[in-house]
Amino acid sequence: MTDVPKPLRSTICHSTADRISVQGMDLTDEILGKVGLGQMAFLEIYGRLPGKGECRVFEALIVALVEHGLTPSVLAARLTYLGAPESFQGAVAAGLSGLGNTFVGSVEGAARMLQEAAANAEPAAAARKIVEGFRATKAIVPGIGHPIHKDVDPRSERIFEIAREESFSGTHVRLMRQVAVEASEAYGRHLPVNVSGAIGAVASELGLDWRICRGIGVVARSIGLVAHLFEEIRNPIARELWLRTDAQAQG
Amino acid sequence: MTDVPKPLRSTICHSTADRISVQGMDLTDEILGKVGLGQMAFLEIYGRLPGKGECRVFEALIVALVEHGLTPSVLAARLTYLGAPESFQGAVAAGLSGLGNTFVGSVEGAARMLQEAAANAEPAAAARKIVEGFRATKAIVPGIGHPIHKDVDPRSERIFEIAREESFSGTHVRLMRQVAVEASEAYGRHLPVNVSGAIGAVASELGLDWRICRGIGVVARSIGLVAHLFEEIRNPIARELWLRTDAQAQG
Amino acid sequence: MTDVPKPLRSTICHSTADRISVQGMDLTDEILGKVGLGQMAFLEIYGRLPGKGECRVFEALIVALVEHGLTPSVLAARLTYLGAPESFQGAVAAGLSGLGNTFVGSVEGAARMLQEAAANAEPAAAARKIVEGFRATKAIVPGIGHPIHKDVDPRSERIFEIAREESFSGTHVRLMRQVAVEASEAYGRHLPVNVSGAIGAVASELGLDWRICRGIGVVARSIGLVAHLFEEIRNPIARELWLRTDAQAQG
Amino acid sequence: MTDVPKPLRSTICHSTADRISVQGMDLTDEILGKVGLGQMAFLEIYGRLPGKGECRVFEALIVALVEHGLTPSVLAARLTYLGAPESFQGAVAAGLSGLGNTFVGSVEGAARMLQEAAANAEPAAAARKIVEGFRATKAIVPGIGHPIHKDVDPRSERIFEIAREESFSGTHVRLMRQVAVEASEAYGRHLPVNVSGAIGAVASELGLDWRICRGIGVVARSIGLVAHLFEEIRNPIARELWLRTDAQAQG
Repeated sequence: MTDVPKPLRSTICHSTADRISVQGMDLTDEILGKVGLGQMAFLEIYGRLPGKGECRVFEALIVALVEHGLTPSVLAARLTYLGAPESFQGAVAAGLSGLGNTFVGSVEGAARMLQEAAANAEPAAAARKIVEGFRATKAIVPGIGHPIHKDVDPRSERIFEIAREESFSGTHVRLMRQVAVEASEAYGRHLPVNVSGAIGAVASELGLDWRICRGIGVVARSIGLVAHLFEEIRNPIARELWLRTDAQAQG
Repeated sequence: MTDVPKPLRSTICHSTADRISVQGMDLTDEILGKVGLGQMAFLEIYGRLPGKGECRVFEALIVALVEHGLTPSVLAARLTYLGAPESFQGAVAAGLSGLGNTFVGSVEGAARMLQEAAANAEPAAAARKIVEGFRATKAIVPGIGHPIHKDVDPRSERIFEIAREESFSGTHVRLMRQVAVEASEAYGRHLPVNVSGAIGAVASELGLDWRICRGIGVVARSIGLVAHLFEEIRNPIARELWLRTDAQAQG
Repeated sequence: MTDVPKPLRSTICHSTADRISVQGMDLTDEILGKVGLGQMAFLEIYGRLPGKGECRVFEALIVALVEHGLTPSVLAARLTYLGAPESFQGAVAAGLSGLGNTFVGSVEGAARMLQEAAANAEPAAAARKIVEGFRATKAIVPGIGHPIHKDVDPRSERIFEIAREESFSGTHVRLMRQVAVEASEAYGRHLPVNVSGAIGAVASELGLDWRICRGIGVVARSIGLVAHLFEEIRNPIARELWLRTDAQAQG
Repeated sequence: MTDVPKPLRSTICHSTADRISVQGMDLTDEILGKVGLGQMAFLEIYGRLPGKGECRVFEALIVALVEHGLTPSVLAARLTYLGAPESFQGAVAAGLSGLGNTFVGSVEGAARMLQEAAANAEPAAAARKIVEGFRATKAIVPGIGHPIHKDVDPRSERIFEIAREESFSGTHVRLMRQVAVEASEAYGRHLPVNVSGAIGAVASELGLDWRICRGIGVVARSIGLVAHLFEEIRNPIARELWLRTDAQAQG
């Protein structure tokens, strides 16, 4: 190439033989033993340490998504581990690959919906416009309704409560609730804000760009997948699941 | 199948329409807003909440591995995102797939080495036997030496210090240090305990099974990968890296 | 569950202790040594063996996508192998994870565009409507234009020629060419049908559902990735690429 | 970096605005429409086109591994697709991630065992030494025995037959058979050469480096995974499998 190459810059970390600096803080002297895991995740993403209440809210969002039983993602990870026990990381990677549009991706959808709404619009009108938009394209309104928690998703209310306690409940939460109200009316059935909607709304209150909201789910589930793979190592179920399924499918 | 099928059991999570229970604790009432991210990771893996000092040590181990610049894993994730921006999770999965034997896998190797050593052996003798074993098979002794931090890995000493402060410094840490001493002598050059060795040793002090030590790196790096992908979204480098590399390779 | 469970059926393969049957053919007696790799891929996907010309066209589509140098996908695979040499499959998986919307996914986009167009519409009108639709949403028209092959993509014309020779050139190919014409006019610059567009069009002639067109790229690139990883094993570049990039990013 | 950087070379592909060359052949003029999929895979890996018989043998090895029902790898891919339908490639990647030591990895193990054996050793003695070596470390001898095909694996004999027909049956095949004989005696039960062993042996006859033998399985299964995902799109089973498994695990 004859042109002067564009620089390849990353400002997150700087390291020399003596010193590793992360977001401007010294890893050894200022971070290790002083910064908790939730603070560290915040620091990595935001480039600064969180306030105390901010951190409590941020951690609650991730904690809420860590575990939900034998999800498709967990089953995929366990089946992958069965085939490739030499690659613990590959089993986690397989599990994370399924955290897409159907499940955790809805957090992203809710956050995007809220963040793209006009900042100064009146909530009821904005919500109506949002619901109409999704109905017009026959798309599913993100963040509302749940196949099991039909009435109210207990996690959602708790997340909203925590956000309120720490003064991170504002326009985004209000709009999310309003979307649920308008959608319930439009579709003629009760559609509560689900956990994805609550997380997407509160993440928006924390100023988290919707384009990385899926990352919250990824971090959370990587913890859950490690725990499930540990259980799989001690009390394996993947082989039985495979043999049983294959036998049924041919039966 | 005519046989009674073996049960497919998982005891980590139990959920009904009203209640989600994780490791016996109610997610809504007992976990959200009360349990931090590090505690949650501990709860998932160990099945109980950690003590305060225990948690500080546990979090330090993960925090130490979150970030180390433009690692091969980070580059793989950024290049994957360039090709498939619709799948944030896939880019993280690609990044995690590289956390194997060469890098983060060495934590596992160190922990295994320590956990498989005879519990009641004299440290110097045990370390000598370990080093001899690796030399006999021409394998690399895990947890010692570093291409950049040749003298002392600052993170290692800090991790050992935190473990000591919280009374989690015992036989495993002692053996790890002794292995570094014996290996330095055997190979005729100074080989300090590196960050993988320190983490493997302290993880062993925390009773973490070596078979899931790689999981600590996976959780840590999933956080780092999310931060790097966020940077990639705002200040992309993957396309330039690709074009430049392809041009050079043909040049 | 109290309901009778829905059956879990798969009809692709049936195996007993003595016999493995794939799409109704005996693997040992009827497939091995008699069915080539391209025929086998066709058999798996379509459920029947292809005709001779049909197979030639089908194979050309896949062959066209096998190799294109040090793509982001190839770099991701090589960097992953550097970190996890124990998991050859994980390196391929990482490489495949990037075959998304930006690159190979455009085959899917082109095929979808063509397959969703009204079957009996007049080509010029249909093409105009398609281009207008993409312009209205500011989306990129799939299958046309190329950063390097600005004038004509040599692969595209060759693929169209092969399809014509085997009588698989019909309404889809015609519409794809017409879309390129209309888009060139609408955007005021020459936008030839690129290799993705040609493959998407000819795949549509072969009756391949657009929802699995991405699979053609996946199969093709899995071959290319194996070859690149073999080169990486013998003449590694990933470590140098990493160190150089990290040094530049900090420099 | 002050040193002159090492060159980043790849010799597989060279492309300019007008021409794409793969392993020295022009993609448009010499490959498309003239080179079949099996030939192309051979060309990519070996750097030359195969002879006719060589190609028949090579294709048979891959074809043999394309399909084996609802394997753990297939289930992982289907479950991943359920969660992330936007990423077809991610579902295939998740499926491939499980092609490790337990299943397809045994091809690699068999090929390695044969390729590392002394070239000029007497087969019976070499086989005895190999079996003793595995027994001494309590490792499983690769390439022999099968949970279902206890007597004889019909695919193995067919693969050996094809290799013989094309004159690719030599010292590696002989040694593989001898290993099965010696292992049967040593373990006191009939252990036939399984399909992995046959493929590993014949791949060795083709001069395929054991370090990329896993790649044969990866290419084969990527085809199988595409077919299974196509079936999943039309007749989904992943959701039912998930719900049923989760219900049982809690029951």
